[in-house]
Amino acid sequence: MELGLTLTLGCSAFALLFAGYLAKWVMKNDDGTPAMKEIADAIREGAEAFLSRQYKTIAALTIPVAAILYYLYASREPSAGHDQVSGAMLATYVAGSFILGAICSGIAGYMGMFVSIRANIRTASASRTSLNRGLQIALRGGAVSGLFVVAMSLLGVGGLFAIMRALGVEATDIPFLIVGYGFGASFVALFAQLGGGIYTKAADVGADLVGKVEAGIPEDDPRNPAVIADLVGDNVGDCAGRGADLFESTAAENIGAMILGATLALTAQANKITFAAGIIGVMLFPLVVRAFGLLASIIGIMVVRTREDADPMAALNRGYYVTTILSAIGFGVGCKWLLATEQAPQAWLNFWFCGLIGLATAMAFVYITQYYTEYKYRPVKEIAEASQTGPATNIIAGIAVGMECTALPVLVIAVAIISSYYLGQNSGLENAGLFGTAVATMGMLGTAAYILAMDTFGPIADNAGGIIEMSQQPEEVRKKTDRLDAVGNTTKALTKGYAIGSAALAAFLLFSAYLDEVKAFKPDFIPVIDIARPEIFVGGLLGAMLIFLFSALAIRAVGKAAYYVINEVRRQFKENPGILKGTSKPDYRQCVDIVTAGALKQMILPGVLVIGMPIAVGLIFKQFGLGAEAVAAMLMVGTMAGILVATMLNNGGGAWDNAKKYIETGAYGGKGSDPHKAAVVGDTVGDPFKDTAGPSLHVVIKLLSTITLVLAPLFI
Amino acid sequence: MELGLTLTLGCSAFALLFAGYLAKWVMKNDDGTPAMKEIADAIREGAEAFLSRQYKTIAALTIPVAAILYYLYASREPSAGHDQVSGAMLATYVAGSFILGAICSGIAGYMGMFVSIRANIRTASASRTSLNRGLQIALRGGAVSGLFVVAMSLLGVGGLFAIMRALGVEATDIPFLIVGYGFGASFVALFAQLGGGIYTKAADVGADLVGKVEAGIPEDDPRNPAVIADLVGDNVGDCAGRGADLFESTAAENIGAMILGATLALTAQANKITFAAGIIGVMLFPLVVRAFGLLASIIGIMVVRTREDADPMAALNRGYYVTTILSAIGFGVGCKWLLATEQAPQAWLNFWFCGLIGLATAMAFVYITQYYTEYKYRPVKEIAEASQTGPATNIIAGIAVGMECTALPVLVIAVAIISSYYLGQNSGLENAGLFGTAVATMGMLGTAAYILAMDTFGPIADNAGGIIEMSQQPEEVRKKTDRLDAVGNTTKALTKGYAIGSAALAAFLLFSAYLDEVKAFKPDFIPVIDIARPEIFVGGLLGAMLIFLFSALAIRAVGKAAYYVINEVRRQFKENPGILKGTSKPDYRQCVDIVTAGALKQMILPGVLVIGMPIAVGLIFKQFGLGAEAVAAMLMVGTMAGILVATMLNNGGGAWDNAKKYIETGAYGGKGSDPHKAAVVGDTVGDPFKDTAGPSLHVVIKLLSTITLVLAPLFI
Repeated sequence: MELGLTLTLGCSAFALLFAGYLAKWVMKNDDGTPAMKEIADAIREGAEAFLSRQYKTIAALTIPVAAILYYLYASREPSAGHDQVSGAMLATYVAGSFILGAICSGIAGYMGMFVSIRANIRTASASRTSLNRGLQIALRGGAVSGLFVVAMSLLGVGGLFAIMRALGVEATDIPFLIVGYGFGASFVALFAQLGGGIYTKAADVGADLVGKVEAGIPEDDPRNPAVIADLVGDNVGDCAGRGADLFESTAAENIGAMILGATLALTAQANKITFAAGIIGVMLFPLVVRAFGLLASIIGIMVVRTREDADPMAALNRGYYVTTILSAIGFGVGCKWLLATEQAPQAWLNFWFCGLIGLATAMAFVYITQYYTEYKYRPVKEIAEASQTGPATNIIAGIAVGMECTALPVLVIAVAIISSYYLGQNSGLENAGLFGTAVATMGMLGTAAYILAMDTFGPIADNAGGIIEMSQQPEEVRKKTDRLDAVGNTTKALTKGYAIGSAALAAFLLFSAYLDEVKAFKPDFIPVIDIARPEIFVGGLLGAMLIFLFSALAIRAVGKAAYYVINEVRRQFKENPGILKGTSKPDYRQCVDIVTAGALKQMILPGVLVIGMPIAVGLIFKQFGLGAEAVAAMLMVGTMAGILVATMLNNGGGAWDNAKKYIETGAYGGKGSDPHKAAVVGDTVGDPFKDTAGPSLHVVIKLLSTITLVLAPLFI
Repeated sequence: MELGLTLTLGCSAFALLFAGYLAKWVMKNDDGTPAMKEIADAIREGAEAFLSRQYKTIAALTIPVAAILYYLYASREPSAGHDQVSGAMLATYVAGSFILGAICSGIAGYMGMFVSIRANIRTASASRTSLNRGLQIALRGGAVSGLFVVAMSLLGVGGLFAIMRALGVEATDIPFLIVGYGFGASFVALFAQLGGGIYTKAADVGADLVGKVEAGIPEDDPRNPAVIADLVGDNVGDCAGRGADLFESTAAENIGAMILGATLALTAQANKITFAAGIIGVMLFPLVVRAFGLLASIIGIMVVRTREDADPMAALNRGYYVTTILSAIGFGVGCKWLLATEQAPQAWLNFWFCGLIGLATAMAFVYITQYYTEYKYRPVKEIAEASQTGPATNIIAGIAVGMECTALPVLVIAVAIISSYYLGQNSGLENAGLFGTAVATMGMLGTAAYILAMDTFGPIADNAGGIIEMSQQPEEVRKKTDRLDAVGNTTKALTKGYAIGSAALAAFLLFSAYLDEVKAFKPDFIPVIDIARPEIFVGGLLGAMLIFLFSALAIRAVGKAAYYVINEVRRQFKENPGILKGTSKPDYRQCVDIVTAGALKQMILPGVLVIGMPIAVGLIFKQFGLGAEAVAAMLMVGTMAGILVATMLNNGGGAWDNAKKYIETGAYGGKGSDPHKAAVVGDTVGDPFKDTAGPSLHVVIKLLSTITLVLAPLFI
């Protein structure tokens, strides 16, 4: 086995073991008082019940898709190009890797949640004595999922590669056979993120509207029947959903980068340029640098500690910087080792710079997101100011901020794509521009495990705060968990910015891989997607429309599900007046059941839309002989629209949330004032934006890429 | 002079005369009681003051742009292709036609308003006795502007064509020399629509929030200091802005279609195919069918009459059907006359079908818009239902509807583009596909004069209602004007749908013209806009981003200006308690002044952005040798994003508005209930969407086309 592959699998295995160690470390912490345990148990039960019902639904959708995939591949007429494996064989590989990807994605999502619903109470308990201890438990709990997700995606892709090599498949053909893996992962990620996102926000909006606004009781008050559903939602939406999302990102992007690597190496070979590490070395490069990134993330996670009186965010940032610097070094080592060639001595250095551009892009996204969502800065302050004149102006200001905040990320993406492309072009290798952008994407994803740890930190801290609140701990303790919670809100916003940025770069990578694949199956294909042609223009327009329609369906789904919750909470308050007096306990389970059923029902339509539309466009335009091109335009323009709409929804939602928090610090009359009520409306509107539609769009963008990648041979 | 040209100029002159006759007819109607006159005078004064200040600002922006245009053209090195005229000569033509277009656009906008601020009181006065009379005055008042705008655009383009011919310029070169006309028209239209749109909604939002929500007084109550500003806004935003907007649409699209016609005829000639009407006949085709459309619109307008107890909308629809049928016939005549050729006997019929597709597309847009914005149907009902749980769910539902309603229009556009393209392709002429889509656009715009008349009907009816309300006429009369007002709301929504549809088709037409022009200046240019290339992808992404950023700035501008109004109204209520008691008069003029200054200040930044960004992208990417292509991608993807965002904003806003109206009919508790209050919030949020950002985006889409068309030679 190649050293690069051994190293990848080895690092991944080590990261898994380390995740296990962290999980054990988290579990051995104190799990609080009986009152706290009771709440945590209710959250855990609700989350597990939701996930098991959700996975059944997803499985029911996955199996027919796998069968269709098999049928389509098996029944198509083999063309020239990469069709040296027989139709049935190819069909088995594609459908099989699809199922494997789906299962792994499901496991990744489950793992994310498994730890978080156990780390929450331990974070809560530890916060009673030490902020540092609370911070560490929450972050290391999050890291279990972060490390697990990234390691498993490397193991999956690397493992498939090793197995296929052992079966005697030509190395450069392998990525085309395992594209199903990425599609399976995105398929499950879409439903996991969508279902979880609908769940979490339906519960949150429902709980807030009746609890805070109508009944006037505080957030996380145990008298609110929807409060447990709300806390469950943080886990199933943010942990399970995001886990599946990032798993598919890394999986799909690894495969895409391997396809581009193979093309690069083969082109170089045709020009008599040989890499010191060989063609396979170039193909393994993405896996190896990601493996280095894993090690960097482990170190970054372990250095995080805070003084009791310090800002916990500073500690998390320190860990991020350490991870980034180590990743940058690892990147250099990987480039020098695997991309060096005597005939183009400059090349590895240029690619290293591409990687650094990726790391810098990640950091730029983190800063831009902070600017638009933290109340230290102009945008959030503007929304808070507009709240003085009521909810309407608050909403208008928030939407303006959401639309405005798309500008800087787009500029950053533009610079990153163009500059890494030109570095690649001028590397001394032929047609290496696209590989340059791929390397930048790899760079951006280098810190993924750490970022995901920070992301999962959010719901754990949020839950810890909820448990402390509901078990009525002293004010002192609440302040500590509130600080952790506030940091969690920031990290959640950052990850979303990061996810969008990486999706944008990755889309370009996957798009190039798609064109390479079409070319592989149809050697006379000219990879030109000319939007001056009406069919291509229409394909693009339909792609952009898909983004809007999907967002509409996702947002409406939350509205509908929230409506059930509101009515249920009102019913309980009405039928049992003892609940509000605090003399009798509300029926939490009923609320959890209602949201579960509602969310699962509502996720079907938007999910099916995203999967069905590219297939329909491909097959219709195939009649005009432009199936592959129309789908490519759909994918590209859909990606552009997706980046913009998702950024608008994520940051707009985050800004509304923090405008409310800013007023709660005492500005414009503080808590309970009219501006505060207006800001609560904005916060509520932002909820389905930032936690349902926005994050689901990340998956949609990538699903569009993977689905077209898998179905490419059908559109030719 | 060619018969086609004579006919165009003749019909246009006739339409102008007829507009004059209608204006006289409107003016000789009774202009009401002294109380009504006082209000109407205040509206007129405010509107004229705004327009004169606005035009000064616009002039101050136009002159330097003309100078820069002259300089850029004069100083560039002449290339091959169409550069047979000297640099200085070309520069004079382009800059001169730019100024002419700007002036005509300004006049068109002024005319739209001139009649409406005089027809409003006459409609009000007539409604005291007869609904039919009121309807006719409002529609014919609107028709003055509709006929004037379309006729003047034909006169402008046709006249320039005639003059240049007389100067001895080759016919097929003329469109390239007068592209400045379209740019000048869009330039002024952008600022007219943007400034007017900011004005109207700042006043409306301000008046509503303090008046209806805080002080609890009804709409158009004379005690509200912002009420006159609100009524002024209807005129400057909807009449003056829309007039300039549609003027530039027709002007730009005529020029674009002439460019495509010239290309078609020259290609045919090269293939030894001759048209019976000659090359110039083909070029004049767009003008001739538009001239027929003018005549059809005149007849359509004159047949509108209603029974006193009938739905006035039915009468307006009848007029629309008459116009559509007559236009369809006129189209057939034009095709048979100007596009017939012996060598391709099928061609004229195919193009006629393209025209019919355009007319059908217009009608489809009208129906889709009705479905999404009238309260008979599901979407608006859904928003009203969601209002029961407060403003947050109302907003969420409204945004979902706004995003959803982009789907059907996009499908209609897709079908229209593809089918007219294929009809053109199979016409027997070479490369006639794009001309087919151009003919469909012409078909869609065939009814423009009638549609614009219906559009201007809206603010006239709205104003009439305001005058009746403020002069405290009996309930009986109010009911009549309320009915007219409700119809006006519908027609306003319809026109916006129509404008977006035509902008979408037209963008494709102008885009093709752009590629033809680049090719004319650089004969070796291959018109391929391959978004698989990073530079082109980035250009497209920046185009989409421009739409979001522009919308953000436009919406924020309203928020800011509304904030001034709110504070002013609150100040007046506080300092002079007699206002609310009805014992003393508020200071209307102060409010008008504040909105005027605010709107003009706030329109600069978004306007400059739209003009500056394509230039910047073109010049930057010119360094990579891809200036023309990157700008083309920016234009195309920007157009797609613009169609979607504008549709979302327009229909979302319309749906919110009517959800409120639906509740006011008694649903969910009716007026004054909590659901109604929630619906008022939604209505207010929708205001800047549907009346500022949305309509301005129509102009932005077309401005992107015309600006790139004019500056194309600079990016090569």
